[in-house]
Amino acid sequence: MEMICFDLEGVFVPEIWISVAQATGIDELRLTTRDVPNYDELMAHRLQILAAHDLRIGDIQRVIATLAPLPGAKAFLDWARTNFAVAIISDTFYDFAAPLMAQLGQPLLLAHSLEFSPQGHITGYKLRLPDQKRQAAIAFRALNFPVFAVGDSYNDVNMLLEADHGFLFNPPAKVIEDYPQLPISTSYQDLAEKLIGVSSRPLTAYDHD
Amino acid sequence: MEMICFDLEGVFVPEIWISVAQATGIDELRLTTRDVPNYDELMAHRLQILAAHDLRIGDIQRVIATLAPLPGAKAFLDWARTNFAVAIISDTFYDFAAPLMAQLGQPLLLAHSLEFSPQGHITGYKLRLPDQKRQAAIAFRALNFPVFAVGDSYNDVNMLLEADHGFLFNPPAKVIEDYPQLPISTSYQDLAEKLIGVSSRPLTAYDHD
Repeated sequence: MEMICFDLEGVFVPEIWISVAQATGIDELRLTTRDVPNYDELMAHRLQILAAHDLRIGDIQRVIATLAPLPGAKAFLDWARTNFAVAIISDTFYDFAAPLMAQLGQPLLLAHSLEFSPQGHITGYKLRLPDQKRQAAIAFRALNFPVFAVGDSYNDVNMLLEADHGFLFNPPAKVIEDYPQLPISTSYQDLAEKLIGVSSRPLTAYDHD
Repeated sequence: MEMICFDLEGVFVPEIWISVAQATGIDELRLTTRDVPNYDELMAHRLQILAAHDLRIGDIQRVIATLAPLPGAKAFLDWARTNFAVAIISDTFYDFAAPLMAQLGQPLLLAHSLEFSPQGHITGYKLRLPDQKRQAAIAFRALNFPVFAVGDSYNDVNMLLEADHGFLFNPPAKVIEDYPQLPISTSYQDLAEKLIGVSSRPLTAYDHD
């Protein structure tokens, strides 16, 4: 049995901060690490913006609850969970991802946590572990699983390189350029075929796309 | 976020070999490590019995597909998966557990594997990792999760003692006697309350029993 470590945003669900920016009309929430390279600074800025608009965790969760997984994501993930051991490793927060995980059928999620005031104001955040995606691949390998990994961006690359087989899914052009050694899929159908190709076991075919 | 490592048989589903013995009428399949303490000898004996009755993996899976999770198991597990990160760590085989995992909503399962001939005869088995239950608790702690663990028998004890909080669920009297330090639950309601009690987070109440 192989373990697959999947990234969440860009693989199964839309980018959460960008979706919140769209749904709330607060354009400043679109900033990413491309605009503010230091993650702590970026998060401090995001939390300031939320506070300035008096947006509490319940408000954000109501916005996120209106989001849906990417088209076909649930069917592909169901196929993967029937054929492999599956974990989702994401640098989002449990408190944000919860409504999306419910729609995906509650797969195991390894993520980070937010901190709140009793009134639901977001006061901070706690990264569970530095470089947690790579560490997850190491931990599952220590449990004697062959490890496959799928992600779309720079924060996934350590996990993809650590895995026995790593795959980029719909990555930006710059990531493709920087990591030409990583195979690329642009559809769930193609990704399923690549995973079947590297598995040592007979698997059920995937034909949902 | 805390991780809960759950045993499978006796916690969420009936004992699989005993159920197969009942469903096939082959009483010899009831033997456990209490009768044949050496696990390799016990498994060799079981595989001989299956071969003698020409029972192949498909036959066994059809029997297992008629089994159901324990009453209330799905509702309790759904509650746990909404409130915690959850993994099921079992010394059964993926090939046996599959029909039951589907009924439980495909939680992550860490288990072992069987080996087959092209005709589906079970030719052997492969333990993924020695002492895998304890190793799972260690791996999830290394990923910086507080680890809770729940099991019913001797093969769970290393995991329960390794965890930050370990709980026995409906254990045999002998296990209770040998490990008086482990708290005991005999219902999902009580187990949920104990898990809420050791969590550092506010959780949704459980009221299904």
